[in-house]
Amino acid sequence: MMGPENPEKPSILIRGRLWFSDIPSKPLAKLRGVARQAIKLAKDDPRRLIHSLKVGLTVTLVSLLYYLQPLYNNLGASAMWAVMTVVVVFEFSVGGTIGKCLNRGLATLAAAALALGANHLSILSGGGNEPYVIGLFVFVQAVAMSFVRFFPKVKAKYDYGMLIFILTFSLVSISGLRMNEVIKLAQARLVTIVIGASTCLAVCILIYPVWAGEDLHNYVAKNISQLGNFLEGHMDQCFQTSCDARIEITKPSISNLNSILVDSKGREETLANLAGWEPGHGQFMFRHPWKQYLKIGSLTRQCACRLEPINGFLNSNIQLQAPQEIQCTIQEAFSESRKALKELAWAIETMTKPSSANPHIANLKTASANIKILLRSSIWGDESDSLQIIPIAAVMIDMVSSVEQIGDAVNELSLMGKFKSRNGNESGVEGESEIGHDKNCIEIGMAEISSLSVAIDERIEYSADEQILI
Amino acid sequence: MMGPENPEKPSILIRGRLWFSDIPSKPLAKLRGVARQAIKLAKDDPRRLIHSLKVGLTVTLVSLLYYLQPLYNNLGASAMWAVMTVVVVFEFSVGGTIGKCLNRGLATLAAAALALGANHLSILSGGGNEPYVIGLFVFVQAVAMSFVRFFPKVKAKYDYGMLIFILTFSLVSISGLRMNEVIKLAQARLVTIVIGASTCLAVCILIYPVWAGEDLHNYVAKNISQLGNFLEGHMDQCFQTSCDARIEITKPSISNLNSILVDSKGREETLANLAGWEPGHGQFMFRHPWKQYLKIGSLTRQCACRLEPINGFLNSNIQLQAPQEIQCTIQEAFSESRKALKELAWAIETMTKPSSANPHIANLKTASANIKILLRSSIWGDESDSLQIIPIAAVMIDMVSSVEQIGDAVNELSLMGKFKSRNGNESGVEGESEIGHDKNCIEIGMAEISSLSVAIDERIEYSADEQILI
Repeated sequence: MMGPENPEKPSILIRGRLWFSDIPSKPLAKLRGVARQAIKLAKDDPRRLIHSLKVGLTVTLVSLLYYLQPLYNNLGASAMWAVMTVVVVFEFSVGGTIGKCLNRGLATLAAAALALGANHLSILSGGGNEPYVIGLFVFVQAVAMSFVRFFPKVKAKYDYGMLIFILTFSLVSISGLRMNEVIKLAQARLVTIVIGASTCLAVCILIYPVWAGEDLHNYVAKNISQLGNFLEGHMDQCFQTSCDARIEITKPSISNLNSILVDSKGREETLANLAGWEPGHGQFMFRHPWKQYLKIGSLTRQCACRLEPINGFLNSNIQLQAPQEIQCTIQEAFSESRKALKELAWAIETMTKPSSANPHIANLKTASANIKILLRSSIWGDESDSLQIIPIAAVMIDMVSSVEQIGDAVNELSLMGKFKSRNGNESGVEGESEIGHDKNCIEIGMAEISSLSVAIDERIEYSADEQILI
Repeated sequence: MMGPENPEKPSILIRGRLWFSDIPSKPLAKLRGVARQAIKLAKDDPRRLIHSLKVGLTVTLVSLLYYLQPLYNNLGASAMWAVMTVVVVFEFSVGGTIGKCLNRGLATLAAAALALGANHLSILSGGGNEPYVIGLFVFVQAVAMSFVRFFPKVKAKYDYGMLIFILTFSLVSISGLRMNEVIKLAQARLVTIVIGASTCLAVCILIYPVWAGEDLHNYVAKNISQLGNFLEGHMDQCFQTSCDARIEITKPSISNLNSILVDSKGREETLANLAGWEPGHGQFMFRHPWKQYLKIGSLTRQCACRLEPINGFLNSNIQLQAPQEIQCTIQEAFSESRKALKELAWAIETMTKPSSANPHIANLKTASANIKILLRSSIWGDESDSLQIIPIAAVMIDMVSSVEQIGDAVNELSLMGKFKSRNGNESGVEGESEIGHDKNCIEIGMAEISSLSVAIDERIEYSADEQILI
């Protein structure tokens, strides 16, 4: 009854609500933004959420030490070292956790033993000199260990151990000045560290483990496959000739090479270092050739750098104007590279021998040789054509040698990592069906070219000049 | 008397010595290798040695807490937290140390306060439920904080703080179950952390401080200058034409672009993060625009990537065969780029306005426009010439736009960072003397080109096609 009769009320209500909602709108919006980001983080990689739950579980488990009377009686306040160990040592990947556990355990052991020795020496020196002797020892080891941390190899794998060494040595040796229970302190510290570390390891490995090695493996494969996607996306835009009869309806979003170029090295090195700590798991043996992934990664980056100029052509939005034969051969090369890269990525992913990439790589070599012949045969009419096509051809020839190198590196990996060979039935999943089609295409191309190359063979010293554009 | 008479003796001695020296030769050789590496590390950057000595000094200083009776009486065994703080918090750069100190201090404060609150709540719940309530709190905060660490912004600057928060909260709240002296524990921890952190800061800032901001500043300038060196090294090898009359006797070693391409991003980001913690120092204000360095660094990487193909030409060891005019213009562009880059690097290093780079960048634009005209004018005789020169010209045109962008970014930096302008006397140090000479050269080139361009002006729609090669 009141609504229609009193038209001012709702407007006041609304205005009031607006006024109220206006006050905290900024913090609220920010909070909502944070929540959205958190959901995105969890969705992108649900292992993050699982990891957080695992940390919570482990910390709570270790806190139990405080409730268990017999344990507390033995360890006393030292029990808190167990909590500290868990918080500091628990990493996202199994490799990280094992690495930190080993670093912490061994460094504590070594430093405690040496500190006890130093204590003994200081007591032998006698005559009230103990503080000075201990002070000297602490100073010398802190300087030495701090410097050792600058060694690149130490920094990569043992940085944390060095830190713990300085810490434990200092604590144990200076505690010796006050208490006579140094040995008990060192012992209690070691026991609690072992308890904390083993709880960590158990939870980390047994509940949804995250293997750095597996991440590295997938990451390297993903980057190679991303190169393939890049070629796929760009090819469609650069070429619209009739030499390829397929009509591609699904056009993948053009991926950016920047992440491969710039971010990958650090990530791959970190993962390879962590993977080095991991025991055998899944398809990976204990000493899986992780270093080889770094080599493949570095070749992938090289290839990405060589492909980068294509972005320029894309941005200029120009349809290539060049003779059909050249366009067809270049497109062939890009298409074969794409397939070779996809096959290589697939071979890594499935840990099978990359034999299905070989025909594509062979085709690539042919295409690369052909383009060199074609470029010299001056079959184009207009000068301006050459301005457009030669830089692309140069990119293509660079790319071909890069793809070959990646192929070789993946082959090495498949030998070192004892990849299984593919049986006849499952070979080439989607590649095989296309090979037939593409062979036709390249055979047509080759027929054209061979007739051309006979004509121009005499005036070109082909083999000698092969390197000109590379 | 015995030496000559007894010829067998020395040989036995020698053999014995050889035998002995043979046993530990491998470990000895390794030790010698390590020593050599250590000396190299110290020579490359003597600040490493100084840093190690500073750590040793600080750890020893803080250990004094144990000797000072009044302090020990107040703090008791908590004094070891001071040692721990020093070891964990002392970083190479001032920014790193301040960042860790703030993280540790604030996180400890916040976590201790919250843990005391949690303790109070658990006591209020009463009825023997305390352990469960505390356990729940510990679990929830550990899960939440572990997840927050995945936020990229938090990971970059506050990762350590999150860790310390989990640690302190867990320790303080579970300690409350056993002792009734939680507040004293929290207090003692805080005091010792403050003592440790302030000693750290004092030593770190007062004795040979290492500023991350200064490192970032120099590193970005060095990378730009390295690009210049790269051009210098390669130009001499690619071009041996008469258009440049200078005879360069000092040939710099050809620098590798790989380190710029791959390693720089991570390092720059780390340094920029650390620099954000640093107070004003030297020529840098408190809020110096560190983010702008990241932008310049990213443009430098882009330029390096565009220059990378030149390595290929270099490896093929081929002298360019192309008309003099084109070679001269390309060489001009490379030479101007080199000078522009060197001037930009110099401007950053000395924190002066990069005005001396402007004429070079103007010349660059002219050269870039000229090369586009020349390429269309078909003044070359042989087809094979164009195969060689067009890819280089494409690289050149890409490079020119990159150098321009770097110039703009450095200009922005000089405005944001309030760089001082150069007075007339000190302008252009080595650049100025060369500008006169090069202006002549480019004026000659332009005269040639303008006569050419008149002839070909009609058939080229120059401005419309400008983008073709970019």
